[in-house]
Amino acid sequence: MKANPLQTIMNPESIVYLGGSNDLQTMGTAQLINIVKGGYKGKIYPIHRKEKTVLGLTAYRNITSMDKPADLAVIVIPGKAIPGVLEECGKAGIRHAIIITAGYGEIGREGKRLQQELIDVAHKYDIRFLGPNCMGIVNGPIGLNTTWFPTKYRAGHVGIISQSGSYVTQTLTYFEKLGLGISQAISVGNQADIDMVDCLAYLGEDDQTRSIALYIEGIKKPAAFLKTARKITPQKPIVAMYVGGTEAGARACASHTGSMAGPNKLYDGLFHQAGILRARNITDLFDWSLALAQQPLPKGNNIAVLTNSGGPGSSMADEADNYGLKIPLFAPDTQEKIKAMTPFTAAYVNPVDVTMNYDLDLIYKKLPELILNLRQIDGMLFYGIFGTIHFQDKMTLAGNHSDTPLDLLEKTTEKACNEFIKLPEKFKKPILCACFSGREDNSVARIQDGGIPVYPTPGRAARAMAALWEYKKIKGHRFPRSPSRKTGSPGDDAGNTGP
Amino acid sequence: MKANPLQTIMNPESIVYLGGSNDLQTMGTAQLINIVKGGYKGKIYPIHRKEKTVLGLTAYRNITSMDKPADLAVIVIPGKAIPGVLEECGKAGIRHAIIITAGYGEIGREGKRLQQELIDVAHKYDIRFLGPNCMGIVNGPIGLNTTWFPTKYRAGHVGIISQSGSYVTQTLTYFEKLGLGISQAISVGNQADIDMVDCLAYLGEDDQTRSIALYIEGIKKPAAFLKTARKITPQKPIVAMYVGGTEAGARACASHTGSMAGPNKLYDGLFHQAGILRARNITDLFDWSLALAQQPLPKGNNIAVLTNSGGPGSSMADEADNYGLKIPLFAPDTQEKIKAMTPFTAAYVNPVDVTMNYDLDLIYKKLPELILNLRQIDGMLFYGIFGTIHFQDKMTLAGNHSDTPLDLLEKTTEKACNEFIKLPEKFKKPILCACFSGREDNSVARIQDGGIPVYPTPGRAARAMAALWEYKKIKGHRFPRSPSRKTGSPGDDAGNTGP
Repeated sequence: MKANPLQTIMNPESIVYLGGSNDLQTMGTAQLINIVKGGYKGKIYPIHRKEKTVLGLTAYRNITSMDKPADLAVIVIPGKAIPGVLEECGKAGIRHAIIITAGYGEIGREGKRLQQELIDVAHKYDIRFLGPNCMGIVNGPIGLNTTWFPTKYRAGHVGIISQSGSYVTQTLTYFEKLGLGISQAISVGNQADIDMVDCLAYLGEDDQTRSIALYIEGIKKPAAFLKTARKITPQKPIVAMYVGGTEAGARACASHTGSMAGPNKLYDGLFHQAGILRARNITDLFDWSLALAQQPLPKGNNIAVLTNSGGPGSSMADEADNYGLKIPLFAPDTQEKIKAMTPFTAAYVNPVDVTMNYDLDLIYKKLPELILNLRQIDGMLFYGIFGTIHFQDKMTLAGNHSDTPLDLLEKTTEKACNEFIKLPEKFKKPILCACFSGREDNSVARIQDGGIPVYPTPGRAARAMAALWEYKKIKGHRFPRSPSRKTGSPGDDAGNTGP
Repeated sequence: MKANPLQTIMNPESIVYLGGSNDLQTMGTAQLINIVKGGYKGKIYPIHRKEKTVLGLTAYRNITSMDKPADLAVIVIPGKAIPGVLEECGKAGIRHAIIITAGYGEIGREGKRLQQELIDVAHKYDIRFLGPNCMGIVNGPIGLNTTWFPTKYRAGHVGIISQSGSYVTQTLTYFEKLGLGISQAISVGNQADIDMVDCLAYLGEDDQTRSIALYIEGIKKPAAFLKTARKITPQKPIVAMYVGGTEAGARACASHTGSMAGPNKLYDGLFHQAGILRARNITDLFDWSLALAQQPLPKGNNIAVLTNSGGPGSSMADEADNYGLKIPLFAPDTQEKIKAMTPFTAAYVNPVDVTMNYDLDLIYKKLPELILNLRQIDGMLFYGIFGTIHFQDKMTLAGNHSDTPLDLLEKTTEKACNEFIKLPEKFKKPILCACFSGREDNSVARIQDGGIPVYPTPGRAARAMAALWEYKKIKGHRFPRSPSRKTGSPGDDAGNTGP
């Protein structure tokens, strides 16, 4: 079996770069800066007709003047010159390319002709390429970012394949706030050669990638897509957003990536057969991918809600219920135990609402452990993160500029968080949190960095929990339970005994 | 007609405060700090049995030792002592109170009894009070914040009434990121005296409030609620989130605010009759309230999408279509005009996708003006905000520490934004934006501060536009168009002529 060309494209030992200069205003230079300064350890060879150095690196006059072929060519020069350059790459022994430049198949007849030229040259020299009209790739773990958006991103376990370059570039600040780390992100552009199916196959095999997020404007080879996806989804979750299902969406997609879109129902069916979760918007796409990459799956849909505030607790319970989860009443003895541990204003039946108080040990440790230890409960939704944000402004407002109490608070809360983040692994049950504050709060940052997603609203945490359960069902369907489990014999650890 | 007691509660000239001390660790002190240091210009009288000053203010030993009655008492002392204190307030001539303390009607029989005691004392002295079990109020324009959450908030035009204190306290950081400004926010708690209907009537009359967001766990007086809401919604939009409609939600609400919840269908009917938009989650509740407070209503549902990136443009078009908006094809002559102004890679039929380029005049001025000037188009969804965030990191990564180019970029982009924010007023049509970067980008901040909402995802902008159209229909239904308009006579400025 032939190696997937993405193996080299995502992990090149050397890159030849066409389209960068010392002029910081150009897109090509912006992208080269990211490669040069983003942490990538491989060799980089800029090509420039006039300059001796580009961004401090020795520049080559052209590809033929190089000693030995690079693993990968990244090309950001005007479109008409690219077939010729690709020919040079072929002659020089370069076998992989990313073609960023737009103005091909997506703009009509002349563009299509030019795109066919690329394909012909590539075939002639056995070159495999990504694009054209794409934003390139991000390989989180090795620090390779060929896109133009320079914001520092987080390496992690969500793999992204997108027909829009923006979803792997301009979203980087969004991901950072969400605490979403990227394993490999690929902007597929016009898919003239390497297509979404190749990318899917690659991420299916990639060990760093624990969940896959797809942004789709139209699938060109549905049979191959289905076959590949079906191999992946029993082991690794895939979440897809498809935007070509409405009349307006289809028109937008056609002019964007030249995709032929189909009706929503067709895609619903395709995703269902493939075991893919369909997200209806960008928020859900990345929220769900994050939870799936980082948390264990619930064995059933009985979820506990633990909160220090009634409103967000009620909101989580309501949204969980709307999305197919259950918030079962705790058994009477459990209720009694919780009642004994909590203030007299607390609720203890599920949701558990400890009401506002400063007992970190109660909310981060004692109650979560008690709850997650319940055989009846498959996962926990949590609203009660409590860090320095509550006090930063207060110190300032109060005119107390000594930072000692804040330092102490920071240490105390982080210690509590460090215990909290161990719980999913310890109990093999998922925890998802919501907090209206973001990473400006030290505890939110600590919990996100510790692998537990923290969403900005209660509803988003609840929907992400529902996505975990949805994928659990998909997985269970693919690997049917053994008969002994079905009859509820001893050892049935998936059983939900109910309240 | 009796004055609404909230008139004084929201705008007191003097406050007597019970429950604050010089111990920064207590909740009562946290709340007092906010009042003292938050910008409020009225008089503040802390009551303390021992201290001579509290947070630098002269303290009084008790209410009876004060010279003249304050407009408002804010009470955060233990619950059992409150009836006695309220009695003292009554004797001293104080007629308004906010009772923050919890442990009343929401915790069972003993709490209910204590709550009745409060009501009896209040009746005896004609005291009107908010709470108990609430978080107090925020009056944005006068800088009065009685809640414990000290984060600086933005004064603006969204009025909030919430059965959860968290939605007017812990959400303040969330609001700040969204650029949502508060006119008046009220945490109603157990509604032992002043209830949601009183608050609604008050915000209905409040000039600063242009839209009202409700968080509801259960409505106690549906007939009064309906009557009051119906008076408001023809002039001022109301968005409500109700969480008691599921079994789990209802249980959570009962323990939280002692509310009796009803099935979703009942509330759907009530909201429909009242002309209230129902939001299904917190995200939509505040997104929609923000758009309704700040943008003109579309006259029809024909919306243009203007973007500098295909993916987000497609996503906005698709979600708009899903939520009942139309993204009509532009007329051929309009298409030609746009084609002539944009790069050859651009899309020009609607969505208009200028693709990534640095022409600020094109994306912020020329194209928006051309589009909003079209009789066919009722509003615009915009993805193309372009500020310093794209370059901050690049400067650092490139090792160019001179900040001159960044300063120039900041000035240039802000100048462009300053023109852009005038457009909704100029054309009397709404603009809603999406950008994955937040206020860390100077242009996002400038546009939000200029009154145009910028949402973190394309779908959220599209759904908020749909909410504007939804409210426009509610308003039109209440004030039926005159027959001449219906027949499309000259002067029918609401007509959608179509492409």
